[in-house]
Amino acid sequence: MNGAAPDPRRVPDCAVRVAYRVPYADTDAMGYVYYGHYLTWFERCRNELLRAAGLPYAEMEARGFMLPVLEAHVDYRLPARYDDEVEIAGWLDEMRGVRCRVRCAVLRGGEPLCSGWTVHACVSAATRRPVRFPPEAAALLAPFASPQNAPSAAP
Amino acid sequence: MNGAAPDPRRVPDCAVRVAYRVPYADTDAMGYVYYGHYLTWFERCRNELLRAAGLPYAEMEARGFMLPVLEAHVDYRLPARYDDEVEIAGWLDEMRGVRCRVRCAVLRGGEPLCSGWTVHACVSAATRRPVRFPPEAAALLAPFASPQNAPSAAP
Amino acid sequence: MNGAAPDPRRVPDCAVRVAYRVPYADTDAMGYVYYGHYLTWFERCRNELLRAAGLPYAEMEARGFMLPVLEAHVDYRLPARYDDEVEIAGWLDEMRGVRCRVRCAVLRGGEPLCSGWTVHACVSAATRRPVRFPPEAAALLAPFASPQNAPSAAP
Amino acid sequence: MNGAAPDPRRVPDCAVRVAYRVPYADTDAMGYVYYGHYLTWFERCRNELLRAAGLPYAEMEARGFMLPVLEAHVDYRLPARYDDEVEIAGWLDEMRGVRCRVRCAVLRGGEPLCSGWTVHACVSAATRRPVRFPPEAAALLAPFASPQNAPSAAP
Repeated sequence: MNGAAPDPRRVPDCAVRVAYRVPYADTDAMGYVYYGHYLTWFERCRNELLRAAGLPYAEMEARGFMLPVLEAHVDYRLPARYDDEVEIAGWLDEMRGVRCRVRCAVLRGGEPLCSGWTVHACVSAATRRPVRFPPEAAALLAPFASPQNAPSAAP
Repeated sequence: MNGAAPDPRRVPDCAVRVAYRVPYADTDAMGYVYYGHYLTWFERCRNELLRAAGLPYAEMEARGFMLPVLEAHVDYRLPARYDDEVEIAGWLDEMRGVRCRVRCAVLRGGEPLCSGWTVHACVSAATRRPVRFPPEAAALLAPFASPQNAPSAAP
Repeated sequence: MNGAAPDPRRVPDCAVRVAYRVPYADTDAMGYVYYGHYLTWFERCRNELLRAAGLPYAEMEARGFMLPVLEAHVDYRLPARYDDEVEIAGWLDEMRGVRCRVRCAVLRGGEPLCSGWTVHACVSAATRRPVRFPPEAAALLAPFASPQNAPSAAP
Repeated sequence: MNGAAPDPRRVPDCAVRVAYRVPYADTDAMGYVYYGHYLTWFERCRNELLRAAGLPYAEMEARGFMLPVLEAHVDYRLPARYDDEVEIAGWLDEMRGVRCRVRCAVLRGGEPLCSGWTVHACVSAATRRPVRFPPEAAALLAPFASPQNAPSAAP
């Protein structure tokens, strides 16, 4: 209600959504998807988020930028299983200076199975040192950011 | 000093340490270890922590307990590379009721590359519902817990 | 022509085709897709082949059948790279008694990057011992078999 | 005896042996190790074979050589499971011109679980085109080759 922070797991309308069918390769002997694979799923979603924004990551690399991961977090709520048809939703949560945070959620039939985020640095592919995001990045990514977290190129 | 919280990345003496040589399989096109693989490294370390405590996870499952992951977090500081000889250190950070938290750090030549933690629930393999840890678990795991976080079987 | 064996890498019209976008997770420090991941790609294609035939593997398991792999082979011709949009084509190459062979090829823009096959046994999920394929399997899979290798339920 | 070919799955004395403990990460919902992971296990063994020969792969790359995989084959006999302590044995099976073949077997308590091989090309890291193995490679690898398959630098 009045002033309550939005549920961070709620997928905002700006999110990019990627369909994914769970292969046996992702499962483990517990019969669930192994907990580490969700980070690959998050990556698939970030790739499509950047592509949707007109900034495909392969192009960013070709132009000399890389986005290594500084931090990753996952909250597991319900397990995914073999052959589940899931949706991975991702949106920009924050973008400031040389860093950004992307939030992801995995849904099955609309029900959230897990959620999390990654924090990335923008680095030069040549020096592997932090550099500012390409100047147009903030504008291109704005449509994929939740309103309260619009990206800003300001320091 | 006086009362400052301990650096959570500092590996305590109670930690179990696992040697690991990085295969090409773990690397990615950036030339670094892919960020998701560290969660598998953490698992290797948890396996040896439980074995060192006399509670091998395979035996726990045979006795009807499972420890699915509820939460995972990784802070990436420096990249590991192909053929690096790393050490994965792990220790019990907290254990209460039906949950525990294991903290891990990856070191190369003593230098921390990344650190993180996982939170686990103890569940019944039959019902997949939360149950208390086996009664002897707290005592067996105590030597692998940092002093300020000794495990307790109390609710 | 006259009697020459068909090129086993040629993708027949009966093949099922699965689109796949290569994530960073699949690449290695050489800048290529790691050689082991192609077996996961083949699995994705087998899953869709069985689904297209009306025999989804998850349903086969639910009915008590499993198809563990007895043999796998891959011929690597050209490397796939990050963000490549590839197609994995798969078809039934042979099906006899308790075994079948599925052939797969990975294509990028129609060009074959690699090809291979897997041999599977049909086993009982309960006993993990070989059993005959479900009787309707041969008929359902026939449209996905190359003409010279039509499946047969005969011993 | 009288001319019979040696069983290719028999591990020769010259083999390098690597101990490995199976993590949950390697298993799948069938309760077995997923079939693709064995190729990573083979890689671990090749890495140690090259290191034992005084030709660590990382050094070969530093000197401008790469050994991409041209062909991989696995025969699965018995499944490995979580926490199994296995041994991966590897030896040089053939080395001619710009190619070599390494054979591997996975053993548990001395019993073979699976076996296979990989064929590699020696390529220039700069051009990614085939080049002859470094001249000393044949001599260094000779102790790890089965007698009938001694490596030769001859074309």
